[in-house]
Amino acid sequence: MKNIMRQQRHVNRKATVFAPASVANVACGFDVLGFAIEKPGDIVSATTTKEHGVRIAAIKGDDGVLPLELHKNTAGVAALRTLEHIQHVRGEEFGVQLVITKNMPSGSGLGSSAASAVAAAVAVNALFDYPISPEDLVNFAMKGEAVASGSEHADNVAPSLLGGITLIRGYKPLDIVRIHVPKELCAVVVNPHIIVKTKEARAILPKKIALKDAISQTGNIAGFIAGCMREDYALIGRSLVDVIAEPHRAQLIPQYFAMKQAALQAGALGFNISGSGPSVFALTNDAQKAKVIARAITSVLKRAGVGSTAFISAVNTTGPKVKVV
Amino acid sequence: MKNIMRQQRHVNRKATVFAPASVANVACGFDVLGFAIEKPGDIVSATTTKEHGVRIAAIKGDDGVLPLELHKNTAGVAALRTLEHIQHVRGEEFGVQLVITKNMPSGSGLGSSAASAVAAAVAVNALFDYPISPEDLVNFAMKGEAVASGSEHADNVAPSLLGGITLIRGYKPLDIVRIHVPKELCAVVVNPHIIVKTKEARAILPKKIALKDAISQTGNIAGFIAGCMREDYALIGRSLVDVIAEPHRAQLIPQYFAMKQAALQAGALGFNISGSGPSVFALTNDAQKAKVIARAITSVLKRAGVGSTAFISAVNTTGPKVKVV
Repeated sequence: MKNIMRQQRHVNRKATVFAPASVANVACGFDVLGFAIEKPGDIVSATTTKEHGVRIAAIKGDDGVLPLELHKNTAGVAALRTLEHIQHVRGEEFGVQLVITKNMPSGSGLGSSAASAVAAAVAVNALFDYPISPEDLVNFAMKGEAVASGSEHADNVAPSLLGGITLIRGYKPLDIVRIHVPKELCAVVVNPHIIVKTKEARAILPKKIALKDAISQTGNIAGFIAGCMREDYALIGRSLVDVIAEPHRAQLIPQYFAMKQAALQAGALGFNISGSGPSVFALTNDAQKAKVIARAITSVLKRAGVGSTAFISAVNTTGPKVKVV
Repeated sequence: MKNIMRQQRHVNRKATVFAPASVANVACGFDVLGFAIEKPGDIVSATTTKEHGVRIAAIKGDDGVLPLELHKNTAGVAALRTLEHIQHVRGEEFGVQLVITKNMPSGSGLGSSAASAVAAAVAVNALFDYPISPEDLVNFAMKGEAVASGSEHADNVAPSLLGGITLIRGYKPLDIVRIHVPKELCAVVVNPHIIVKTKEARAILPKKIALKDAISQTGNIAGFIAGCMREDYALIGRSLVDVIAEPHRAQLIPQYFAMKQAALQAGALGFNISGSGPSVFALTNDAQKAKVIARAITSVLKRAGVGSTAFISAVNTTGPKVKVV
């Protein structure tokens, strides 16, 4: 009787979650650093159903590209893994139906699949009164993100889910460190209207790198962390150097070095590829300058005949927005 | 007349400087991280002379191993480069005589040559009333240290000269970042009585490393910096991982993994090679535990018939000690 009442209690609840886009790699932090931005972001609504299991009812904003099939969909897998865990803990079975609203394209370098996975995982967790901590929820969202990227990564999932700037210190076990967000830090993110597949962008990287490059990268990420923690924007700027991905991936992005030059000339602290591209980002500690930097970047693309969308955003320190009805 | 008075003023002044040993690499910071310890350290006395140029009058404690020839001696070259800079700025010529007292062997992994170079550079700078800032002085001490190590590195020179924990973010230009020293951090440094040449220890490293290892190293150094800055000792401990040097250099050090196991069992936060070895270090945030850890490490060596000297020390946040008469 108690079980029936609890099940009843969960039927027809609805949780709607916005999970933000994120910038991974952040120049000096290939595969380990990421930060969340205010917008864009994906929205997943999860509704409890009498029928057990997870079902994707609809996907909006994807131009029919994304699969409705549960196991091939990042949000679907993230929701399923989250629900399975909750079922295991509660010793009951539940049913959830998802409606996914995509506000950014796949393969944009904005952490699109991570945002969908996070929104789905958080929505399911919210439906059942948050039995899973945000830190633990990263694991389930990662399972979803892996459907798109081919392997389990947390560098977009962690900032989208936890907000702020996150470091993945290591994976065995998953060790996520929240990095202090400098108050004035402002991101300019520009999405050129072309698609770069994460898998292709990954395949272009060498399996080995020069020891001297690894040393350079460790110096820069250490400088970036110190710069963030003491709000030293000049140090952050000097540390935004990428010797691992940029030399290989820049060629996949039209006008990359022209955009970089324009952003730096407009006063950006640094400029690099967002995730695996083609989106790019610049950082500044001057909100006024951000607009100038955004114009400088998009103008380069426009002159080359490439359309783009620019987002100017503080680092998003709050993560997903949840509404439960 | 004024020039003669100024020269007179500098004759027969004597500056005696103790510069501390240091632990470079610090597991996750190959070639970029280092910290100074309280002892041991080398001492250089510099006396102004009427005869222009730099002369090494004596070297003590080196068992006759180190060259008196100026250009082959780390302290000599560091003193000379420092003096040349002062002469250039002042538009005058000066003379300095050095007496070097070594308190640790070369090839110990304790930053022995860096300590001598730092002591010499600081002594000459002190003789002439500190015209060169400590940060700039690193450049001249590096020239001296290069005589011993074969290339210009600052990962021992910077902590010995500036004290504390230092990060070399980059070399072009030299960018040294002081990292907050967690109050309770305590180092155990053990010097097994064998010699490993820095050049050999460097030659054993591969020129290329796996990308996944570089990613692991960046995650760990970032975690270490964050751990230091927020005094999170557990995070510091989890970050003391070395996938670059340890796998290759451990074989040069007798009982390395047995020492490591003993140190960790005794409660160390982490254990690794100090510089290029054979010295090893462990970190703890418990001064009482430090003694137990030191005993655990030296006992392993003793059982294997290897003598050793152990040093227990807080991180030395003050750097060189100077006495001018």
